[in-house]
Amino acid sequence: MPPRTDAPEFHCETLAIVGVGLMGAAIAREARRQGAAAHIVGLGRDPARLAAARHSGVIDEALTSPEGLRNVGLAVICTPVDRIEADVRSLLVSGGGPRLITDAGSVKAAITRNLRDVPRFVGAHPLAGSEKRGHEHAHEVQLQDRVCVVTPEESTPSDMVDEIRAFWTALGMRVLVMPADDHDAILARTSHLPHLAAYALASLLEGNDIPFAATGFRDSTRIAASDPKLWSSILMLNRDAVRSALAAYRRTLDAADALLQSGGERELTALLAEAQQARLRLEPPAKPGVASGPR
Amino acid sequence: MPPRTDAPEFHCETLAIVGVGLMGAAIAREARRQGAAAHIVGLGRDPARLAAARHSGVIDEALTSPEGLRNVGLAVICTPVDRIEADVRSLLVSGGGPRLITDAGSVKAAITRNLRDVPRFVGAHPLAGSEKRGHEHAHEVQLQDRVCVVTPEESTPSDMVDEIRAFWTALGMRVLVMPADDHDAILARTSHLPHLAAYALASLLEGNDIPFAATGFRDSTRIAASDPKLWSSILMLNRDAVRSALAAYRRTLDAADALLQSGGERELTALLAEAQQARLRLEPPAKPGVASGPR
Repeated sequence: MPPRTDAPEFHCETLAIVGVGLMGAAIAREARRQGAAAHIVGLGRDPARLAAARHSGVIDEALTSPEGLRNVGLAVICTPVDRIEADVRSLLVSGGGPRLITDAGSVKAAITRNLRDVPRFVGAHPLAGSEKRGHEHAHEVQLQDRVCVVTPEESTPSDMVDEIRAFWTALGMRVLVMPADDHDAILARTSHLPHLAAYALASLLEGNDIPFAATGFRDSTRIAASDPKLWSSILMLNRDAVRSALAAYRRTLDAADALLQSGGERELTALLAEAQQARLRLEPPAKPGVASGPR
Repeated sequence: MPPRTDAPEFHCETLAIVGVGLMGAAIAREARRQGAAAHIVGLGRDPARLAAARHSGVIDEALTSPEGLRNVGLAVICTPVDRIEADVRSLLVSGGGPRLITDAGSVKAAITRNLRDVPRFVGAHPLAGSEKRGHEHAHEVQLQDRVCVVTPEESTPSDMVDEIRAFWTALGMRVLVMPADDHDAILARTSHLPHLAAYALASLLEGNDIPFAATGFRDSTRIAASDPKLWSSILMLNRDAVRSALAAYRRTLDAADALLQSGGERELTALLAEAQQARLRLEPPAKPGVASGPR
């Protein structure tokens, strides 16, 4: 059987990871494991943290300025969403810069729109993570068999899209290519609003409630342990889609409240049953080994 | 060291479990394991399901009518909250009935108020469970080291409260005694509203969103897989407290929405940070082996 031409192997000599935190380290670890790069450079702001990441084998080389970068095939920007645009541009100032750039940000439209003048940038969002921070927890992030959304602009050359797809596929991810706006509308429902909802639930907790917060509460609010600054940036950068999802959410809550007030138990059961059916469609989780999705 | 007089051993000859579903079976299993009863009778409506529970050793005897009950030391009502009052009363009609009755319902004020004329009833709520149903999943329910709230009326004789405390303590639970209204207000925040919120989040899911629902969404909405009829009853029976918690929740969401609209990123970060602190206070979970709480 001939090799699949739509998912070519990816390999580059030097891979640069900008921002060696939880996601940056997870991507570096998996790239190394899959042989996607011969040499991995970590770029960051905190020399001590970078040295620790190098010491533990996450990266081969640590830099605090892009000026030392040489012959980088691909740079992956893994910094918070409000820094991605600036970090991409910082790679370009010193002349050459990486041949290709992608990112791991949870919001795509604002970033790809602002970087339209940088054709070597192709935005991406690996749907993986944890509420924790730091390269030390990178082994808890599973990339294998998870979805990675790649969001080229219409003007992005298709061979660049193919290379970026090949990179994320090489990490074992299921790549889906779609417009950035579609990504942002979907992620507002499946991730951004759920984070806001979890924070809002957690904030209701009164001091004496703690012994009564059982498994259900803990699971529902686990993501409220996430970094507030990171999530404030994500919500703000995707505010239109988040506000739209939030409006739909409040309509459902309002409907439930009206039924509680009127005693409409049968209708409330129907409302919950419809939601339960939506939730049950999620199980079981996506099977491992599924091929990458449609372009 | 003398034995603790405030947590006496519990033992009865015959324990009756009314409703041998997930929780009823979990309580029966643990009661047997702890030697709390010599003989366990299961009372239910479905002979085939009861026979299966008896076959798998959850109960020793299966009855579909309380008339066959004899010399029951304690009956535990494990039916849905909207059936508990009637099920308690059905145990009383045939003369004798159980010496003591408790329950496992998630709402307490309405039930204990309606049963004020039944002094042998002392309401309880073991904070344990699962989104699943049926005695087959009972082994997934952990009672050991979990909180059980006992909600006597002011008129309940204290020796009865002691016996009910002793029963739940014998199952390895951390018993907290408090007024039913306090229980309901707290549980509205820590369990009932989170369930409603999870259902509402799940109902936002559109058909094509499924591949994008990652771990965060799955955790946040796990409890939306719970039985809609059961939860509709719980929400309705505790509607005042749930509506009050829901109003507070909507105020937080409204505040976040206003900040998204106005671009108040710093204030949004502060709002999320406060919620994160509340969530972090939950970790690590309550230590095993902590003594029972205040009376």
